[in-house]
Amino acid sequence: MDESIIDFQRRNRVGVIEAIWGEHKSIEQISKILGKYQLASETALVTRLTKEKGEKLISEFPSAEFHEISGCLTMGRGKEYISSFEEVIILTGGTSDLSVALEAEISLNLHGIKTKLFIDIGVAGLHRLLERLEEIKSSKVVIACAGMEGALPTVLAGLIPQPIIGLPVSVGYGISSGGKTALEGMLASCAPGLVVVNIDNGYGAAMAALRIMSS
Amino acid sequence: MDESIIDFQRRNRVGVIEAIWGEHKSIEQISKILGKYQLASETALVTRLTKEKGEKLISEFPSAEFHEISGCLTMGRGKEYISSFEEVIILTGGTSDLSVALEAEISLNLHGIKTKLFIDIGVAGLHRLLERLEEIKSSKVVIACAGMEGALPTVLAGLIPQPIIGLPVSVGYGISSGGKTALEGMLASCAPGLVVVNIDNGYGAAMAALRIMSS
Amino acid sequence: MDESIIDFQRRNRVGVIEAIWGEHKSIEQISKILGKYQLASETALVTRLTKEKGEKLISEFPSAEFHEISGCLTMGRGKEYISSFEEVIILTGGTSDLSVALEAEISLNLHGIKTKLFIDIGVAGLHRLLERLEEIKSSKVVIACAGMEGALPTVLAGLIPQPIIGLPVSVGYGISSGGKTALEGMLASCAPGLVVVNIDNGYGAAMAALRIMSS
Amino acid sequence: MDESIIDFQRRNRVGVIEAIWGEHKSIEQISKILGKYQLASETALVTRLTKEKGEKLISEFPSAEFHEISGCLTMGRGKEYISSFEEVIILTGGTSDLSVALEAEISLNLHGIKTKLFIDIGVAGLHRLLERLEEIKSSKVVIACAGMEGALPTVLAGLIPQPIIGLPVSVGYGISSGGKTALEGMLASCAPGLVVVNIDNGYGAAMAALRIMSS
Amino acid sequence: MDESIIDFQRRNRVGVIEAIWGEHKSIEQISKILGKYQLASETALVTRLTKEKGEKLISEFPSAEFHEISGCLTMGRGKEYISSFEEVIILTGGTSDLSVALEAEISLNLHGIKTKLFIDIGVAGLHRLLERLEEIKSSKVVIACAGMEGALPTVLAGLIPQPIIGLPVSVGYGISSGGKTALEGMLASCAPGLVVVNIDNGYGAAMAALRIMSS
Amino acid sequence: MDESIIDFQRRNRVGVIEAIWGEHKSIEQISKILGKYQLASETALVTRLTKEKGEKLISEFPSAEFHEISGCLTMGRGKEYISSFEEVIILTGGTSDLSVALEAEISLNLHGIKTKLFIDIGVAGLHRLLERLEEIKSSKVVIACAGMEGALPTVLAGLIPQPIIGLPVSVGYGISSGGKTALEGMLASCAPGLVVVNIDNGYGAAMAALRIMSS
Amino acid sequence: MDESIIDFQRRNRVGVIEAIWGEHKSIEQISKILGKYQLASETALVTRLTKEKGEKLISEFPSAEFHEISGCLTMGRGKEYISSFEEVIILTGGTSDLSVALEAEISLNLHGIKTKLFIDIGVAGLHRLLERLEEIKSSKVVIACAGMEGALPTVLAGLIPQPIIGLPVSVGYGISSGGKTALEGMLASCAPGLVVVNIDNGYGAAMAALRIMSS
Amino acid sequence: MDESIIDFQRRNRVGVIEAIWGEHKSIEQISKILGKYQLASETALVTRLTKEKGEKLISEFPSAEFHEISGCLTMGRGKEYISSFEEVIILTGGTSDLSVALEAEISLNLHGIKTKLFIDIGVAGLHRLLERLEEIKSSKVVIACAGMEGALPTVLAGLIPQPIIGLPVSVGYGISSGGKTALEGMLASCAPGLVVVNIDNGYGAAMAALRIMSS
Repeated sequence: MDESIIDFQRRNRVGVIEAIWGEHKSIEQISKILGKYQLASETALVTRLTKEKGEKLISEFPSAEFHEISGCLTMGRGKEYISSFEEVIILTGGTSDLSVALEAEISLNLHGIKTKLFIDIGVAGLHRLLERLEEIKSSKVVIACAGMEGALPTVLAGLIPQPIIGLPVSVGYGISSGGKTALEGMLASCAPGLVVVNIDNGYGAAMAALRIMSS
Repeated sequence: MDESIIDFQRRNRVGVIEAIWGEHKSIEQISKILGKYQLASETALVTRLTKEKGEKLISEFPSAEFHEISGCLTMGRGKEYISSFEEVIILTGGTSDLSVALEAEISLNLHGIKTKLFIDIGVAGLHRLLERLEEIKSSKVVIACAGMEGALPTVLAGLIPQPIIGLPVSVGYGISSGGKTALEGMLASCAPGLVVVNIDNGYGAAMAALRIMSS
Repeated sequence: MDESIIDFQRRNRVGVIEAIWGEHKSIEQISKILGKYQLASETALVTRLTKEKGEKLISEFPSAEFHEISGCLTMGRGKEYISSFEEVIILTGGTSDLSVALEAEISLNLHGIKTKLFIDIGVAGLHRLLERLEEIKSSKVVIACAGMEGALPTVLAGLIPQPIIGLPVSVGYGISSGGKTALEGMLASCAPGLVVVNIDNGYGAAMAALRIMSS
Repeated sequence: MDESIIDFQRRNRVGVIEAIWGEHKSIEQISKILGKYQLASETALVTRLTKEKGEKLISEFPSAEFHEISGCLTMGRGKEYISSFEEVIILTGGTSDLSVALEAEISLNLHGIKTKLFIDIGVAGLHRLLERLEEIKSSKVVIACAGMEGALPTVLAGLIPQPIIGLPVSVGYGISSGGKTALEGMLASCAPGLVVVNIDNGYGAAMAALRIMSS
Repeated sequence: MDESIIDFQRRNRVGVIEAIWGEHKSIEQISKILGKYQLASETALVTRLTKEKGEKLISEFPSAEFHEISGCLTMGRGKEYISSFEEVIILTGGTSDLSVALEAEISLNLHGIKTKLFIDIGVAGLHRLLERLEEIKSSKVVIACAGMEGALPTVLAGLIPQPIIGLPVSVGYGISSGGKTALEGMLASCAPGLVVVNIDNGYGAAMAALRIMSS
Repeated sequence: MDESIIDFQRRNRVGVIEAIWGEHKSIEQISKILGKYQLASETALVTRLTKEKGEKLISEFPSAEFHEISGCLTMGRGKEYISSFEEVIILTGGTSDLSVALEAEISLNLHGIKTKLFIDIGVAGLHRLLERLEEIKSSKVVIACAGMEGALPTVLAGLIPQPIIGLPVSVGYGISSGGKTALEGMLASCAPGLVVVNIDNGYGAAMAALRIMSS
Repeated sequence: MDESIIDFQRRNRVGVIEAIWGEHKSIEQISKILGKYQLASETALVTRLTKEKGEKLISEFPSAEFHEISGCLTMGRGKEYISSFEEVIILTGGTSDLSVALEAEISLNLHGIKTKLFIDIGVAGLHRLLERLEEIKSSKVVIACAGMEGALPTVLAGLIPQPIIGLPVSVGYGISSGGKTALEGMLASCAPGLVVVNIDNGYGAAMAALRIMSS
Repeated sequence: MDESIIDFQRRNRVGVIEAIWGEHKSIEQISKILGKYQLASETALVTRLTKEKGEKLISEFPSAEFHEISGCLTMGRGKEYISSFEEVIILTGGTSDLSVALEAEISLNLHGIKTKLFIDIGVAGLHRLLERLEEIKSSKVVIACAGMEGALPTVLAGLIPQPIIGLPVSVGYGISSGGKTALEGMLASCAPGLVVVNIDNGYGAAMAALRIMSS
């Protein structure tokens, strides 16, 4: 049975390279899909791969690249960089949020958007955020990752006028395990104009930034 | 006791007229705040007012205007329209979503952004959405309101490349009462790049659109 | 201790081959039950088996067949096909939903109902759905599988007059992990007359279709 | 502003008279919609009206009829009865479930389907259910309303082979208040082939029965 | 560090052998505790042991007995049987509920209460319940185990006048996974006088029966 | 339409006077039901009546008695007291729990069971509980009402060997509003053999005590 | 029936004037309790009174004082101020949080603790917080009220070394309505050493501050 | 990429050694961070390490110490003990809560605070608590760990005047699994002045005690 029919037209319609979601697919299923991409000379992005899946796939598709921390696999050439300037800034509260932040970064880079990643910007150490405020203000869009209570995008949205995409991360324990507290905290934010995507959805935050950049 | 200190600097810093949230404040509290705005000749926007509160306030502040369906009160001059073109399109699934859609519209108009409102665009009657697709595509940002299962922004995000802000509405009953199903459906969307704000947060969706327009 | 007493009369009373739910039973327990079915020359259907369990069981019961993707085991002859026509159409949004869709298909086939499976029909790529609408309309019952936000059955129910059974799938992450968002989105649907079964309940959706076919 | 555009074509496409949901609409909004129906000589069904709203509307539209217990208003001629036989049987566990059961009944009658209503059929008094089993078995479709723990459809589905639509009712208190326990109990049912609609969705259950009758 | 101080007086005060909960304790911790019991010649009951833990412990304490299906370990003599008659009847809906039912049975037997276990009594096959009703009625207390929608105790409570303890079981999937639907269904029961214990709490249900037997 | 058929046989079968649940019924519906009870000379118990409903009903049925604090109405003679001794002790943590405690008391008295009510026994003032421990120990069954964190039954179950029925009360605010925290705290209790009924279910707790008394 | 027995010894034992919780008590019940306090010449604090209840009670007890915004009633002399210095600082994010902040302030003042209240200190306007940081640092304990996403205590805990009590407020809408998001955000805080009380529990936060002041 | 920038100034600002949260970090990531601490001669505390991670890290950092039961690693000298007296008492209900209690103890010891740990103090065996009450009263701060229903801090707060920090533990099953019932029970407590931290947050409870000790 041929389980997948690829819709290459959608990327023309909506302008995005649709990610292949690797988590609930077997290596065989992903391999079949990648084969079709290769045949069509299309750029592919697979997300949420374990190290084991990723390594098996790059042994099968030598032109592909596996990004271990983010669990992403890319195959084929990304788009040309539109600008030499880092238009999207991605902020994370710590090394635990890194994989999600990198999924966003890889997704944007593949679509020709340069990015800058600031690690260890969290609300518990406010001065680090304040020190970098001018640099952050120079960007066009900000993606703010946060787990735990997810307060970073709220604090940020009171300080800068840019579009800010809150990206909740499933880092936490007890009441905050799974990232739901971070998500709800961002939605409930008292700061006006903050928008939010699903927990751990680095690719989604990137595509939202792309839509904004293109508008 | 003087209960409120207005932070007029924030609108310079972040560029937005911060809404006064009317729901949990007494008429006396709102009246005191509006008095300070009047004194400072600042434009004010109060949201989530009952008809009773709204009417009492405009009898006290004759220069204010009360928008009954949306529960919004505006006082003072809004910003000049930046463009003669309706850059933000607001879609609703039915008359029940209207108050939230109008809160978004009034908030944008006050900030100098022209808007267009399409009523009765819902996924159960797909052809009406398809008929207006070209017009929707001409906008810069789309705000898609939906209660119930909240599928409208998902369907839309597969059809157009613009930034789409999903605005869940607390219309529903049983499992969907309070708007949480619509919110979660939008967050869970399989369409890439959709962003979401809190349930019924028309003002927040508008301010997000404003941030995007200004970026 | 003899732990299970098989109720073969129920299939006469209600007309269904009751599935043996394999997930919370040990291989020993399932094996004992299958032994009784074999003795009584009754057709058996076991669902939710891991590959390991499935393979051990077919080595014990050589007449049984194990369907790996769906985790189903069938033993004995199914009913004769009632019609040469595919009366039930099963739609899935992607390869990740396949195992649940196949559980529904195997269950229906075993009861003498022919089925047709459409893969990669999702709301994010609306045109694929619209292209197949006429074929879908020719069926008697539609089973629409969906994970994530679960919007497919809603969109479908606005387009066709047939009975549509929404089958939510536990594919998702963050807010949609476990399939609850898909389930609630289907229940909250603004499209009239959509019915829903439990998450991942392919067998249940099939039995609902069977009841409808027989009514 | 003309807030509503009626989609009379949908009833041709899907074959149902779409209900006007009265709960979150003002009398003025409903009145405008009904006016358009009257003009087009179309049959209208409004659900979830309070007594006050219902009475004001029939004073405005004398040809309309208000059904107080169910909160439904009908205007215009329903379809001709297709059959002289009561093809759909509606069961309720008690007088508290009556309004939801009647919403289903009125909706079906309007579409030309005869119904029979059995009151006070609950699982706590099993013998009453067993006494009427033969009569229930003679129907084509059964709609089983239940609040509290919602066990009635489960018990029924083990006894009869027909399509059974579980209709959870928001009657209950403590853990069962709002009907969520009844809904989840029906979804979790161990009886194969039971389908479920949203809490209190009498109209939706009726439309599901209609789809089944027409298939 | 001596991590545990055993309170042997409590069993005099309240009359129960307090179970040692094995799930969140290491083998070393349980072993230390059992050592103290052995020294004091006290009867011990450990619950929720994996096969691996259980087997290691009986190799260390040869006088102990490990009951694999229920995950219980008993050491030392139980109380003399108070009566030659099976005063407590335990009902289960299927082999998947067996481990919890056996935890209840072992706990009661250890306290000198004879029990009878009926397997495969579920609401989907009502006739099996009705066939055994007279025998069930002869008991003093009934413990009714159920997963999924948990309707068995409700149906039973409408048929017999004895104390019935609802014991929800964490068997299920989707909406019913973890046993919460069964628990809530029992609490919401429309049948008067049903009492409930925590999910999978076979020991707790047994101790409740013991309290009733002793009152 | 005659909406209710009274099942007087159930009280013979199960031995309880089934309460008429007044909350979701109109005065007209309750009045019709009470009329049938009067005709059959049967004792009636209506629960969850507002003051307004209760007073209208006793003006219609002068032989009935309305108990304002508990919202209960009784009509007809209760059973003879079985014993001159107060066999069931009902404990409450404060005046806010009183209505639920009284519903339990009235229900038991009507069935011929004497009760004793201890007010203001809560865990925050442990000494009051300890002072009355001997008297509490002399009872056959204890019903322990508690809102907030619901710790009273847990503490009690460690001190006395009798059957204890935990009765959670919907008194609380914030996290404990609606009584769910009290309910879950009782179910999660570390004290063995505690059983629980639904929130505010005074009648249910009484019927559980009755079943125990009769066993 | 005398429904309440006052435990005046507890205030000696634990050192606090226990609040009488007014929300779920009738005026008659509160009046009886206050009468006993008056007789014993004890200071009383009643919380969560509506304006109507409060005014009726002060007309009955002229020595009592009703604080309308906070819904508190005090009767009798509070303790002497321990210090002339405002040892506890209470911060609120806006006028909507005021009633809860004032409940905390009144409770502390009554126990002889001076307080200072800072209004309109929220994370969306960070500079106002930073401007007052030195003054806040001079206190012994800080109570930080916040609704919405509840980020204020988190930001604060990264800036000052004092004990900080997070007091979530039931101000919000959509996902944050009822204050649960604020509560969970505070519990999930990435800032070390933040403690939390129940939503709207101004009295509880005050008593926690009192315990700290006395330790 | 250098993923972490250590903020050693924060410990001066707020006075705490910030824990490195080991759960969502790889050994490589933790190792890099510890290297920087070693270089800066700063004391480090890593929490939530598996045995495997802990052992690998001490083989790399021989000066570090791994505390297996608590999953904590400490490196470098802690602060001098401020007092020879055990100022903080930590209570646990059983050996299953031990790891969380030890995380609190190690964290306090590292900051120069002596502690005393009482094991097996639970509400089901009240006399053990009462026997040690005098000793508990002699402390400055009490940390009360509890899983299941979490009643221990509530009972304690009615008996002693000190600050009590409720520390919910993720020990439980069914309704109490994950520790949420314990957390909510503590928040809902009827005892005034109890404060709470996140589930399993031993380090957080310790830092709260430290803030109190320093105030």
